[in-house]
Amino acid sequence: MADSDRQIFRLRRGRAFRRAARQRRLDLYLVTRPEDVGYLTGFTGDDSHVVFDRSWACLVTDGRYAEQAAAECPDIDIHVRAGDMSAAIADALKGRRKRRLGVQADHLTLKAAKAIAKALKGTELIPLADVTGALRTIKDDSELRSIRTAVSVAERAFRELIAGGAKALVGRAERDVAAELDYRMRRLGASGPAFETVVAAGPNSSKPHYRPGGVRICRNEAVLLDWGAVVDGYCSDLTRVVFAGRMPPKLIEAYEVVARAQAGGIAAIRPGVACKTVDAAARRVIEAAGLGQQFLHGLGHGIGRVIHEAPALGPRGEARLRKGMVLTVEPGVYLPGVGGIRIEDDVLVTSTGARRLSSLPGDLKAMALG
Amino acid sequence: MADSDRQIFRLRRGRAFRRAARQRRLDLYLVTRPEDVGYLTGFTGDDSHVVFDRSWACLVTDGRYAEQAAAECPDIDIHVRAGDMSAAIADALKGRRKRRLGVQADHLTLKAAKAIAKALKGTELIPLADVTGALRTIKDDSELRSIRTAVSVAERAFRELIAGGAKALVGRAERDVAAELDYRMRRLGASGPAFETVVAAGPNSSKPHYRPGGVRICRNEAVLLDWGAVVDGYCSDLTRVVFAGRMPPKLIEAYEVVARAQAGGIAAIRPGVACKTVDAAARRVIEAAGLGQQFLHGLGHGIGRVIHEAPALGPRGEARLRKGMVLTVEPGVYLPGVGGIRIEDDVLVTSTGARRLSSLPGDLKAMALG
Repeated sequence: MADSDRQIFRLRRGRAFRRAARQRRLDLYLVTRPEDVGYLTGFTGDDSHVVFDRSWACLVTDGRYAEQAAAECPDIDIHVRAGDMSAAIADALKGRRKRRLGVQADHLTLKAAKAIAKALKGTELIPLADVTGALRTIKDDSELRSIRTAVSVAERAFRELIAGGAKALVGRAERDVAAELDYRMRRLGASGPAFETVVAAGPNSSKPHYRPGGVRICRNEAVLLDWGAVVDGYCSDLTRVVFAGRMPPKLIEAYEVVARAQAGGIAAIRPGVACKTVDAAARRVIEAAGLGQQFLHGLGHGIGRVIHEAPALGPRGEARLRKGMVLTVEPGVYLPGVGGIRIEDDVLVTSTGARRLSSLPGDLKAMALG
Repeated sequence: MADSDRQIFRLRRGRAFRRAARQRRLDLYLVTRPEDVGYLTGFTGDDSHVVFDRSWACLVTDGRYAEQAAAECPDIDIHVRAGDMSAAIADALKGRRKRRLGVQADHLTLKAAKAIAKALKGTELIPLADVTGALRTIKDDSELRSIRTAVSVAERAFRELIAGGAKALVGRAERDVAAELDYRMRRLGASGPAFETVVAAGPNSSKPHYRPGGVRICRNEAVLLDWGAVVDGYCSDLTRVVFAGRMPPKLIEAYEVVARAQAGGIAAIRPGVACKTVDAAARRVIEAAGLGQQFLHGLGHGIGRVIHEAPALGPRGEARLRKGMVLTVEPGVYLPGVGGIRIEDDVLVTSTGARRLSSLPGDLKAMALG
């Protein structure tokens, strides 16, 4: 980070904000969305906002976090509020120029905006489009380390689970398998699952957003698992389809198609390519197999502090890939009444292409649990 | 529910909305907060809004949920959106009178409000204070059943955990114990923990919002556990302090004080009493023991679809209790460097007093794990 950056915001990763602030002639910028506050300051607690101008930054938090905030954010001011957040922001800004205050339009509520405007009389609130979303698409080394660990924890938990062979699945309720996978991720160091783990057996696997229930898993059916870990505040996201006995023949065909589609999608990834081009590279394979109507969603999405981040890797994605983005690549084919196949891995966009961050095997043989 | 209610909103629990709509001369009301959408319609999916006038209600959802919404909300219209939520709302409202549209000021973002105002030209958005919050404080029979089950699942998981005796704690990392408790709740039917489970050993237990880490639990120290389950979308919330060997003598004293404070608080609960009076009944006991400065938070809070609901049972709580409210009662004493004691149970406000919904023993002897 350039020295000027450090002096200007005393925040990590303040560059894009500085640009937005200059363009909109802001005196101050208020960041309220929790993942952005953490991203900019390193603070890991809740219920806190950060406000900054060109030479100064301040985290407004409460008594529970006073000690933690001082330890995690040594370079910025900490204002510990006693009452309302809006009053505390006004206190923290006393004596500062504050004619124009940028706010996060896609996070700040009408009520909070009104309270802040009232507490800061004479200040105009400027609702701004997402700034951190684009900034956060490019992961730095420390973020990449966290994502790699989140991937590794999710993979190890999966390997532990399926080491049990057929009895890891057959006769068990979907939700018990999901609970076990989550428990194993926690034991391996995850703070929790990155989203509600999906375990969908047989025909349930054809519903892309199925929630695991009390259904018992049988032999000779596909079991779709979609899971991820949160480690150091960063997410991983993986999908595999496993089975005990034999897979229904239609799904064996679909599996091969989806695996080839995933390979095609990953091969299309490199800086400068539009998201929709990557989606098309995978979709073409599925369409050629006559299954285009059964691929119900986009090819993938960014991951990071939240599980769905920019960019969206879909048929309408105009954004272009850049080095340092981390994406899921997850084509799927869903056959109602039979089952679904989705194979999902996490990849890093490098200067020349894509590097897989996940290392689970993807071939059908490895998915047979006896 | 009166027949007129059913005709007017075709929503469950629409009464308070009807009153608000009449007072503010609204043509329509838009509810965006997920827990309120679920509360009013019975829908259990995500990313959906409900909009209604006096004779009609409509859930605006997306393709993933079309089938589920039709099954869960048979009495109201379902509008499946293809694109933007704001455009879909405009579509759903075609041909309806829509001069004044009430919105949830404490949930709707500036960006969403702007998009809706743009899609609905000529409609004025009226930001309204929380309506469902007050409505949701009074639980009906079906909600009470869910909360009772959530309490029972949390209790059974705890009993299973401590059935292991001292070895359930000693030598294990706090976060492993937390993960086990969560796993047991899931196996017993919880969809997940109601919040991040706290397991805080020794001096860590004096920090009310401590997050469990890699610290290994020792003999002869207090271990504070604060946990709850979500069942059918409703939360429970319990706290106990357990130990292997002996508790530090100062904490034994504190334990007796906190137990008496909790009993005093629960004895003060009945309809018509102000929240602050209940808080004072418990706080008085702790102050009389010279530990008033060590009771760092309010006595309790409502629970329901989210873990912290109205009313807040604190020193400044002017709201009065009503029959059907469900509250936590959780006095605590925190001795920095030594440890903390908190005892938390969930109670229902009845017509004459309070009924405990939780049944774990609270006496110190029962907390000794060998």
